[in-house]
Amino acid sequence: MKIIDGGICAAKGYKASGVHCGIRKNRTKRDLSLIYSEKRATAAAVYTTNLVKGATLSVTKRHLEDGFAQAVICNSGNANTCNENGIEIAEQMSKLTADALNISENDIVVASTGVIGQPLDITPIKDGIPDLVKTLSNDGSADASEGIMTTDTVKKEIAVEFTVGGKVCHIGGIAKGSGMIHPNMATMLVFITSDVAISKEMLKKALSSDITNTFNMVSIDGDTSTNDMVTVLANGVAGNPEITKEDGDYEIFMQALNTVTVNLCRMIASDGEGATKLLECKVDTAKSKAIAKTVAKSVICSSLLKAAMFGADANWGRVLCAIGYSGADVDINKVDVSFKSKAGEVKVCKNGAGIPFSEDEAKTVLLEKEIEILVSLNDGKDTATAWGCDLTYDYVKINGDYRT
Amino acid sequence: MKIIDGGICAAKGYKASGVHCGIRKNRTKRDLSLIYSEKRATAAAVYTTNLVKGATLSVTKRHLEDGFAQAVICNSGNANTCNENGIEIAEQMSKLTADALNISENDIVVASTGVIGQPLDITPIKDGIPDLVKTLSNDGSADASEGIMTTDTVKKEIAVEFTVGGKVCHIGGIAKGSGMIHPNMATMLVFITSDVAISKEMLKKALSSDITNTFNMVSIDGDTSTNDMVTVLANGVAGNPEITKEDGDYEIFMQALNTVTVNLCRMIASDGEGATKLLECKVDTAKSKAIAKTVAKSVICSSLLKAAMFGADANWGRVLCAIGYSGADVDINKVDVSFKSKAGEVKVCKNGAGIPFSEDEAKTVLLEKEIEILVSLNDGKDTATAWGCDLTYDYVKINGDYRT
Repeated sequence: MKIIDGGICAAKGYKASGVHCGIRKNRTKRDLSLIYSEKRATAAAVYTTNLVKGATLSVTKRHLEDGFAQAVICNSGNANTCNENGIEIAEQMSKLTADALNISENDIVVASTGVIGQPLDITPIKDGIPDLVKTLSNDGSADASEGIMTTDTVKKEIAVEFTVGGKVCHIGGIAKGSGMIHPNMATMLVFITSDVAISKEMLKKALSSDITNTFNMVSIDGDTSTNDMVTVLANGVAGNPEITKEDGDYEIFMQALNTVTVNLCRMIASDGEGATKLLECKVDTAKSKAIAKTVAKSVICSSLLKAAMFGADANWGRVLCAIGYSGADVDINKVDVSFKSKAGEVKVCKNGAGIPFSEDEAKTVLLEKEIEILVSLNDGKDTATAWGCDLTYDYVKINGDYRT
Repeated sequence: MKIIDGGICAAKGYKASGVHCGIRKNRTKRDLSLIYSEKRATAAAVYTTNLVKGATLSVTKRHLEDGFAQAVICNSGNANTCNENGIEIAEQMSKLTADALNISENDIVVASTGVIGQPLDITPIKDGIPDLVKTLSNDGSADASEGIMTTDTVKKEIAVEFTVGGKVCHIGGIAKGSGMIHPNMATMLVFITSDVAISKEMLKKALSSDITNTFNMVSIDGDTSTNDMVTVLANGVAGNPEITKEDGDYEIFMQALNTVTVNLCRMIASDGEGATKLLECKVDTAKSKAIAKTVAKSVICSSLLKAAMFGADANWGRVLCAIGYSGADVDINKVDVSFKSKAGEVKVCKNGAGIPFSEDEAKTVLLEKEIEILVSLNDGKDTATAWGCDLTYDYVKINGDYRT
């Protein structure tokens, strides 16, 4: 398996585009994106668990009930959430897209991200769709990834190439992370494309299983958004024998999917609001997977630790503290902690107590942009990883600025 | 019932003191406090649920097994947590205090707050105790409250006067809030004194019941410290008929205790690290108490909302979002939200959707120092309140500064 360029268009049979249609005032920022598969694809999605849900989520959910889709339409600048006519607008977006592509409305994935509680005017979308369709291209991944950004500072694209049943296959993905806009709501959107032939049942299984170890392990600030959605389309253009059960081919597909999703998780976390550092908490030797995950998430969510990482402060007490209140059944007296980056590794805690370490060395390790917080529970064999970012002045600035 | 001066010494039969013994380098800051009851008192305590526990907590727990205590010794500057000889040091602190006061070691409540993972030298404590005992006074509450502070910016004292069985009674309290020290660990410590006669069983019941609606509803940053402890002593000097069951007198005691604890909660929250505002989330018309509490805590813990409050931004979408991901069984379409302060009240959300409001008026309301976030679930009769503070640049600064 190798990582390649091309994002969502690396998978065969997909085109994408992104335009500025006018939802945003800034005319240099694309705000409407389209992904199109030349062949109807099996499709699966997972949605936010927030009780407050964007209107687009209900419409997409209905459209994916049959397990198929052929296109994704997504706007940024307005989340179309908590609006009285939200469903109606989401349905109009779908219908306009379907008509322009000459496909079934039921094969459209529709998504919105941005402001909540403000009516979304369909006019700019209606006006933008012809342009979107006209500019669909095999090189369109970057434009599409820009069109879904809110306050993301970088585009998030990834693709992998691998072999299934002797056929060269691909999975590509784009994402927008936790960014706020005026007046705002954090939202994670991920759109994944593949040319693998895989049944809708197995695709659903693969996605549902993968996200428990990937997107569900990312935390920017502990807030779960109303519009989070991860979708995957698989159009079978690669020509491999269709994956219909949990065999070796399915395993290969799962590994490729995981490579895509883990990379997107890292991109989302490192571009968290105001973030200067990517934090990765890797827990090993846990008694169970559940314990490993609970501990990893608790550490990555600690505001105290996040602020310490911003300050490049090897404050292992905060790691131990976060493990202690995680609710996981852990023997604190067995816990080892170390901080690691490309500058080296510093062991800071052994058997639940501090050990002498060089503060200079620790600072050198923590001044890097990507920090691993390694936690060994010494109590079993399970592992888990969670991704997050540091807590910075800019996070407060972005989220505390006057909305008006 | 009326609020009076005097803090922990407002209750009859109590003396207190606070000195600088040398744990802290800053010679102008007291770092060792003593509270002494002239009569052995019934006593109860609640402790942090963090699996990482300060050594003093185990020693205090053992001493309070019989339900009695007569003195409290507490140092700041070092939490005596995650140290190999922690228990030994805590026992020495107890013994030195008991010997100096000529009381049983088993009647000592011992507490520490400050740095974790650094050995606590008993020498300054040993040297300071004679001074502490010598300066015990009926006016010592302020000194004692200073001696337990870490980065708290204000002393936290309160007392109430009320009548039980025809006798004038008192409850006083001091607290230290979530503050960090160099290198740090947030800790909440609360010491409450009363001259009421109440059995140890009823005292324990009163405290355990009260904290579920008070200290357990305070959040500064979602991190639960290793050394949190709330203790109450009741020495019976007021001469009321001993409270031994849940009768009217118990109700009066409970109300007085609640007045003390709610006031301390508000003081702790408004002096949260870097805080510029006290946030109070009041939830009403909930289907159950549990739902009301879950919703109130979720709102008060949202980093996004906390940052918005810092910016005086009436971002009701973040309130709704936090309710939505709280996990509580809530009908979002029934939820009303408003922001209130002494400058007025602005309704911002009705039936789960935004309603027009004046941004100017909202800003005026939110520029105040004490903000109420009012949430009506319109689904029942239960209520709950949670306390917190805004998320500010200073929080990041205090917690992100280089430890070294």
